[in-house]
Amino acid sequence: MKKFGLSLLCLSLSTAYASDDLDMANKIRAEGFYNSEVMHTLEQLTDEIGPRLSGSPQMKKANDWTLEKLKAWGLKNVYLDPFEFGRGWSHDSASIALLSPREVSLHGIPVAWTPGTQGDVKGDVVIFDAASIADLAQYKGKLKGKIIMMGAGKNIEAPENSVFQRYDSGELSTLTEFDVMRAPSHSPWVTSDRRDGAMQRYNFQTTLSTFLKEEQVAGVIYRSWRQGGLINVFGSDHRVGKTFPVPALIIEAEHYNLLSRMIDNGKTPKLSLNIDARFHDNDRNAYNTIAEIPGSDKNPEIVMVGGHLDSWHASDGAVDNGAGVAVSMEAVRILQALNFKPKRTIRIGLWSGEEQGLFGSAAYVDEHFATRPKPTDKNEQALPSYLWKDQGWPIETKADHDKFSVYFNMDNGSGRFRGIYTEGNVAAKSIFGNWFSPYSDLSTGTITNQSTGGTDHESFDDVGLPGFQFIQDKLDYGSRLHHTHIDSIDHVVEADLKQASVILAGFLYKAAMADERMPRKPMPKDISNLQKQQMKLKADKARKNRDKKGNKNLEINSVKN
Amino acid sequence: MKKFGLSLLCLSLSTAYASDDLDMANKIRAEGFYNSEVMHTLEQLTDEIGPRLSGSPQMKKANDWTLEKLKAWGLKNVYLDPFEFGRGWSHDSASIALLSPREVSLHGIPVAWTPGTQGDVKGDVVIFDAASIADLAQYKGKLKGKIIMMGAGKNIEAPENSVFQRYDSGELSTLTEFDVMRAPSHSPWVTSDRRDGAMQRYNFQTTLSTFLKEEQVAGVIYRSWRQGGLINVFGSDHRVGKTFPVPALIIEAEHYNLLSRMIDNGKTPKLSLNIDARFHDNDRNAYNTIAEIPGSDKNPEIVMVGGHLDSWHASDGAVDNGAGVAVSMEAVRILQALNFKPKRTIRIGLWSGEEQGLFGSAAYVDEHFATRPKPTDKNEQALPSYLWKDQGWPIETKADHDKFSVYFNMDNGSGRFRGIYTEGNVAAKSIFGNWFSPYSDLSTGTITNQSTGGTDHESFDDVGLPGFQFIQDKLDYGSRLHHTHIDSIDHVVEADLKQASVILAGFLYKAAMADERMPRKPMPKDISNLQKQQMKLKADKARKNRDKKGNKNLEINSVKN
Repeated sequence: MKKFGLSLLCLSLSTAYASDDLDMANKIRAEGFYNSEVMHTLEQLTDEIGPRLSGSPQMKKANDWTLEKLKAWGLKNVYLDPFEFGRGWSHDSASIALLSPREVSLHGIPVAWTPGTQGDVKGDVVIFDAASIADLAQYKGKLKGKIIMMGAGKNIEAPENSVFQRYDSGELSTLTEFDVMRAPSHSPWVTSDRRDGAMQRYNFQTTLSTFLKEEQVAGVIYRSWRQGGLINVFGSDHRVGKTFPVPALIIEAEHYNLLSRMIDNGKTPKLSLNIDARFHDNDRNAYNTIAEIPGSDKNPEIVMVGGHLDSWHASDGAVDNGAGVAVSMEAVRILQALNFKPKRTIRIGLWSGEEQGLFGSAAYVDEHFATRPKPTDKNEQALPSYLWKDQGWPIETKADHDKFSVYFNMDNGSGRFRGIYTEGNVAAKSIFGNWFSPYSDLSTGTITNQSTGGTDHESFDDVGLPGFQFIQDKLDYGSRLHHTHIDSIDHVVEADLKQASVILAGFLYKAAMADERMPRKPMPKDISNLQKQQMKLKADKARKNRDKKGNKNLEINSVKN
Repeated sequence: MKKFGLSLLCLSLSTAYASDDLDMANKIRAEGFYNSEVMHTLEQLTDEIGPRLSGSPQMKKANDWTLEKLKAWGLKNVYLDPFEFGRGWSHDSASIALLSPREVSLHGIPVAWTPGTQGDVKGDVVIFDAASIADLAQYKGKLKGKIIMMGAGKNIEAPENSVFQRYDSGELSTLTEFDVMRAPSHSPWVTSDRRDGAMQRYNFQTTLSTFLKEEQVAGVIYRSWRQGGLINVFGSDHRVGKTFPVPALIIEAEHYNLLSRMIDNGKTPKLSLNIDARFHDNDRNAYNTIAEIPGSDKNPEIVMVGGHLDSWHASDGAVDNGAGVAVSMEAVRILQALNFKPKRTIRIGLWSGEEQGLFGSAAYVDEHFATRPKPTDKNEQALPSYLWKDQGWPIETKADHDKFSVYFNMDNGSGRFRGIYTEGNVAAKSIFGNWFSPYSDLSTGTITNQSTGGTDHESFDDVGLPGFQFIQDKLDYGSRLHHTHIDSIDHVVEADLKQASVILAGFLYKAAMADERMPRKPMPKDISNLQKQQMKLKADKARKNRDKKGNKNLEINSVKN
């Protein structure tokens, strides 16, 4: 397998890479390695601006800063593209302390889109263990002024010894095997077939929200699903009229368990909370930052690149996803610095609302490339879009759908590019093999037809447009940084960002100059009810297995990423 | 090697283990596995009492609770043995927040034995980078009202993939190899030969302390030497008249680095600190909890067991060293529950002041077994004992020195007993092999003549008395729990504590009933100046290597453990 892959690579190198291409690869490498601005860009997004929760003033700062920067680099048609998002929210500080039976400063971070406390709120702690609307009755009249813990503590298992990982050749090889029985990691079908459970959870959360408000609960405490002092944050519903009405915090699992054991032992812990947080309702839009290197063709096709600019609020969103933004920006900066005049337009999209459900990229795709019917039923319209019964068929394409070539997304931490997922687009495979060839000393260039999900290339793929993510070394992205309070620039690997920037610039160059636009998979279409049922059974089974592991069920609302 | 070890084991089993011994082993196992109280004991020390900093009210609670518990179990001669320690200190809460250039709640824990802030203290942050008294001049007149960072931030390296480890057979085998060229991991000689550097650091700290007070510095920030959000705490000098005069906090490395980078970029971060802390000067003693199962011999010899009851203040001191205390207590509880009447007295010692320099066990040994001359020079008397020029020769033994058989200490987390260190006492090796035999299904029973340092068995070993520690599985003790804010009972492995309790009880039983007291190594004696010089050279080299790794140089005062 390996030998075959190598000889294929040499073949494509000799046949497809003209000398001007290799000259360009040399220039890209020199600019990307020795005049790099990628870390400077990332520092601005993280150290300088900090957390970039969608709809927050800091996210708006990030929009403005990226806008100005892309302008300064000489990109054209630079603007902020608004879409309706919901309420803005931000917090300046939060603290939580155990007052009795003994005094301990605890470590907690607010759930996004919950109100502040207007000073210290003190209350006795009770464990609240309701999983359905029927469970609420037993708590009626008992929660006034209480601070409630969302479920009992859980034993902490021994930690895994795989904090920081790069792919080895065996894993990369396994990754290239395609399994026809496995549903793509994302698809409107799967989402749709998980709807029943999600609907139940949504209804429960809506009722719970009203119930806790009526019962005058003073505060809510969630347990971080990670251990070892890491706080993994999430948000409540951010839609107008839907935000959670009670101040809520996520605290360290160790601290949560301490409170839980105290209650088990007949104690009544008393807590003090203080959250300085606020809603921003003056502007209910969020914004994508858009910019272009215009194509020289008469009616140029479009090549896109990007990643989500928004982050959660626990830290500075350095690897999720400052890294992806900095690398995307660096790739276009490199091309711009080389005064490259592409045939196709190269357009960068820095998305907002990704963390709440890929909203920014979806809105952009909807506006520019293809749209899907919205629900006509008023009740359904009031639901979050992931709960709509029909995920919108048929897809109606717009003029630019045809002009679109390809979108490259980056959103898996700061790990270097080890290859790329084709999302099942076999026709892309040999093209990518060729494009990797000037960088074979930088990357194994593994190409898999598997899919990878959970981020903005899905918005393109969902309407039949080629959208890709690279295979990135995992590093400690999944093990400890993703959505936690330590997602700071300290944990970013500079060499990896430079490698990714160069390869990404190389890919954009090739995509912009290729004779043909990127080949496409067949358009997605609705599937039969029988198929849906079968997928539902599978999804239920998968969910049950996931629930056994049981670590991610704490989110107030199930969100896509 | 392995085969030989096994046949030796069978041999000792058949020759040395009488049937009444094996009957006792059965009883110990049944009591330790099925009537265990070890987790209950540990819960009391951790969840209930919490951090047990020497000299604090919580440590006194722990002394009182262990006293009452040991009495309730029927042990005799139960008392609290005082020794002069210094000032008590405790804190109820601490918070730190970045106010500008942007608002962020940071995570910090006070340095022990620094004053509280009496409300919020706000100040601009400056980096203070002085390593010698001469370096102080440049800061004169510039620090008033400032919050100073102790040095610039440091890059965070990728984390290691070895968070949770058990020994494998290869490592255990390596551990049994003795290296004659390697100095014991502890010894009065080595301590003495590191004196010059330590003296320099001490003098600098003393001058610095006065300087910061005179310059009216508002607060001091240290960087946790661990990364990933873990705060590793330490203390300042606790001696009367020597405590650090400025409120000081240790914060997450990630937060420290953020501040440092802001300063690098020309910003002036402004912080707010609030530490609710206080000194306790009404009682300057600390206490060891002592209790016995009296021996039935006429003038019974003494077998001892124990571990330090004190902890640092960042968390509940569960693995450092609630685990060692709970297991030591459980071992005597098991024997007491079996109504065991030992020939020798079995005495438990739960030490205080270990974290500041093994003070409790040293004071106990000094009082009961052997004493060393104190300095006669007044200036020298004013120094901490680790800085005394002469480490006290000759050793003067007391009556009980001769009656002493052996001390077993536990202080390396909650990991199960995989064997034991003989501290170079070869005569103990075959004895321990025999004692492990009824537990060969529970432990590999590896016996190494190597030494292990850093805890209270040293106080015995230092005066020629057999003091031992077991080889324990490392788990995540060193990687993330030792002295950090997540040292909670969540990370304790219950099965391992039960295993350790049973083996320890088995060892105490055998030690109390053996025909002879434990064989001893030759008495320690002073070494020649030439030898001292050679050891100093080696120690300097070792220190330089350590400094290159550079992670533990932040402590205000170098302490032994």
